[in-house]
Amino acid sequence: MLAAMTLAIVNIGELVTLAGPEHYRTGAWMQDVGLVHNATVQIKGSRIIYAGPAADAPDMPGEVDEVDAGGRVVTPGFIDAHTHLVFGGNRIDEFERRIRGESYEEIAARGGGIRSTMTATREATDMELLTLAQRRLALAMRCGTTALEIKSGYGLNERAEKKMLRVIAWLRDASKQRIAATYLGAHTVPPEFDGKADAYIDLLCQDTLPKIARGKLADYADVFCERGAFSPAQATRYLLAAKAHGLRLRAHVDQLSRSGGAELAAACGCFTADHLEYTEESGIESLLRANVQPVLLPASVHALGKTRYPNARAMIEAGLGVVLATDFNPGSSPTLSLPFVMSLACTHLKMTPAEAITAVTYNAACCLGWHNELGSIEEDKRADLVVHDCADYRELCYYIGSETARVVVVGGRIAYNRDGGGE
Amino acid sequence: MLAAMTLAIVNIGELVTLAGPEHYRTGAWMQDVGLVHNATVQIKGSRIIYAGPAADAPDMPGEVDEVDAGGRVVTPGFIDAHTHLVFGGNRIDEFERRIRGESYEEIAARGGGIRSTMTATREATDMELLTLAQRRLALAMRCGTTALEIKSGYGLNERAEKKMLRVIAWLRDASKQRIAATYLGAHTVPPEFDGKADAYIDLLCQDTLPKIARGKLADYADVFCERGAFSPAQATRYLLAAKAHGLRLRAHVDQLSRSGGAELAAACGCFTADHLEYTEESGIESLLRANVQPVLLPASVHALGKTRYPNARAMIEAGLGVVLATDFNPGSSPTLSLPFVMSLACTHLKMTPAEAITAVTYNAACCLGWHNELGSIEEDKRADLVVHDCADYRELCYYIGSETARVVVVGGRIAYNRDGGGE
Repeated sequence: MLAAMTLAIVNIGELVTLAGPEHYRTGAWMQDVGLVHNATVQIKGSRIIYAGPAADAPDMPGEVDEVDAGGRVVTPGFIDAHTHLVFGGNRIDEFERRIRGESYEEIAARGGGIRSTMTATREATDMELLTLAQRRLALAMRCGTTALEIKSGYGLNERAEKKMLRVIAWLRDASKQRIAATYLGAHTVPPEFDGKADAYIDLLCQDTLPKIARGKLADYADVFCERGAFSPAQATRYLLAAKAHGLRLRAHVDQLSRSGGAELAAACGCFTADHLEYTEESGIESLLRANVQPVLLPASVHALGKTRYPNARAMIEAGLGVVLATDFNPGSSPTLSLPFVMSLACTHLKMTPAEAITAVTYNAACCLGWHNELGSIEEDKRADLVVHDCADYRELCYYIGSETARVVVVGGRIAYNRDGGGE
Repeated sequence: MLAAMTLAIVNIGELVTLAGPEHYRTGAWMQDVGLVHNATVQIKGSRIIYAGPAADAPDMPGEVDEVDAGGRVVTPGFIDAHTHLVFGGNRIDEFERRIRGESYEEIAARGGGIRSTMTATREATDMELLTLAQRRLALAMRCGTTALEIKSGYGLNERAEKKMLRVIAWLRDASKQRIAATYLGAHTVPPEFDGKADAYIDLLCQDTLPKIARGKLADYADVFCERGAFSPAQATRYLLAAKAHGLRLRAHVDQLSRSGGAELAAACGCFTADHLEYTEESGIESLLRANVQPVLLPASVHALGKTRYPNARAMIEAGLGVVLATDFNPGSSPTLSLPFVMSLACTHLKMTPAEAITAVTYNAACCLGWHNELGSIEEDKRADLVVHDCADYRELCYYIGSETARVVVVGGRIAYNRDGGGE
């Protein structure tokens, strides 16, 4: 029997461990990210066996592969807790239409938006969707993302939704990154049910949701509660049916208008409430009481040219474990870069770099139930980590537009090495 | 004697030529970027000898190196017409202070801002500045930038300004990218002249400027006309002295407040007026009459968390040849990515992707006097071009946060190849 492979990351200038439970529900103006300078991380098989000062690192017996971090920053792998990574086509034409003055909502009302991606996704084969998604995962890896949540929601009929979930399952089996699957059957009303949103929700609750749950095709169910998509009453009905069938819940709420969405997510027992641009104080209190984590998606605010960002500071002051995610999708959030999202969070949400990095690592792991394994660099945790091309972790939140990851380790193996080599 | 090397870029899905003089002073809602589908570019030595449909490409005799673009997009190399690429230190601490509510102007008033970079730059050795700048040039290359303007302005005394210009001259000799040097002695009032801005301008006009010009240390002179820096009267005095000594002129105007800066730049005969966030209709008319190109820097607006962007649409409608640049600097514009700047221009300035790409290629070449050599892909022009990882050039303006350049050719040679190889 072969011994487990051993790997050491040496010469780490600044190790961002995020160790310790205090990093969930961050204090206001958080600073402490568990920094260790001049550090070493030792890995056996897929697990971290030591993370701390180089001077205190134990000897590793036998042959050890080494990655020299060259005095750079090492962080936990980033976790993207809200993506729409699987889809066909693109929406470049709509991008130009928005530049010329049409709004996102107007384009949707004219058959564009989610419905245009729905058509392309329905028409695509499994293999086409898989190939596109794998390219996107590789790009996410280059941005330091080692785990993601991926939603369905561009099929909008049973056959195409199952196709999307099948592709997500394949990605989960084949890709290096860890993946959670979310069924977003209630993304928008499909054309077959125009003007009959209630009938569509009936179908989902009575037929599709039970099948998805029985087939174990998804970990979570999600809904888009918004004007033009589903009302609070419809969203509630869908979420409670999903819950009854054993799915855990997430919800898109309060994105483009205030609809009491945060309160709704809390009342339904969601794990997360996502977007929250229009959430006010009462909504924040509801989230806190119900232990719902806010997942903030500033890249979609930015890309839609809007200026109303979610009130992250109020959420942090209230004690919520704020998560940041890309919301990657072809219509409103054209980025797979969590560092870019962190920079938006610092500049526009007034989160500190410490709060931002916690929001894409430990807090993100918590909202997906992965915090015992992922989200920090500690003994016994899974060895998912990134060597970044900078000397101070705050630079990750500052410089924009380049890929900082030099080496990405996933489950103890080198999954990406910018300068070649690795596996 | 060796024959000139020959190189062919084949299998180009979409070639963005920007050929033809009509691309200077773009028409409103410009669309035409001289696209050729299924194209080939042939290069001999440093020059393009053919750019057009693959079917019409002439045979190339002898041994030809080939780059297979794999159906992807090829554009001219990007030209960054406004950077502060040479400096010591960083301003990460000020980034955190801004998050906590201090304004850029308040930080400057407390000795931070430009003065903090001045201190770090004065203290740095030539070699330290050179090493840092070379790393930044490599990063710019990865973002597709093949030519740049670089300013001094963090020395603010003769010795340190000359050191910066010496470093820029070394970069020009040693780097693959083409570089223009700008003397920005009037960036801000140095501490030695606190409260004596007029005396500092006197010194520059009577002593430093003549020396810089005689030593041919710079191509351009530049000034920061703004509250807290130099008044319109001081800026005018400096610019006219620089002109009298044979330097061409650029100016930072109307960035944080309206001071008639565009009119000033026009009156002084500047090649460019840069920033222009507060420029109104009369300023635009002045620029047009005096043939001054606007250089817009939306990344600094974005990074400072401000919302007042320059009125690019009015400038384009007026017929101005709008340029976009990064303004890369450690305090207010933390990006070397012209694609990111293009995405900001599309989202916030409502420029079309066609207008944005023209603004970082042909129009940028014009404002630096390089348009006979650079800025478009045409026969006899210098072979500076980029193979991008996308199928539609508009994607360059849409997706954010990843590096699109796969292969960068500068002067007919492969200067960067993401997948290894090249030189």
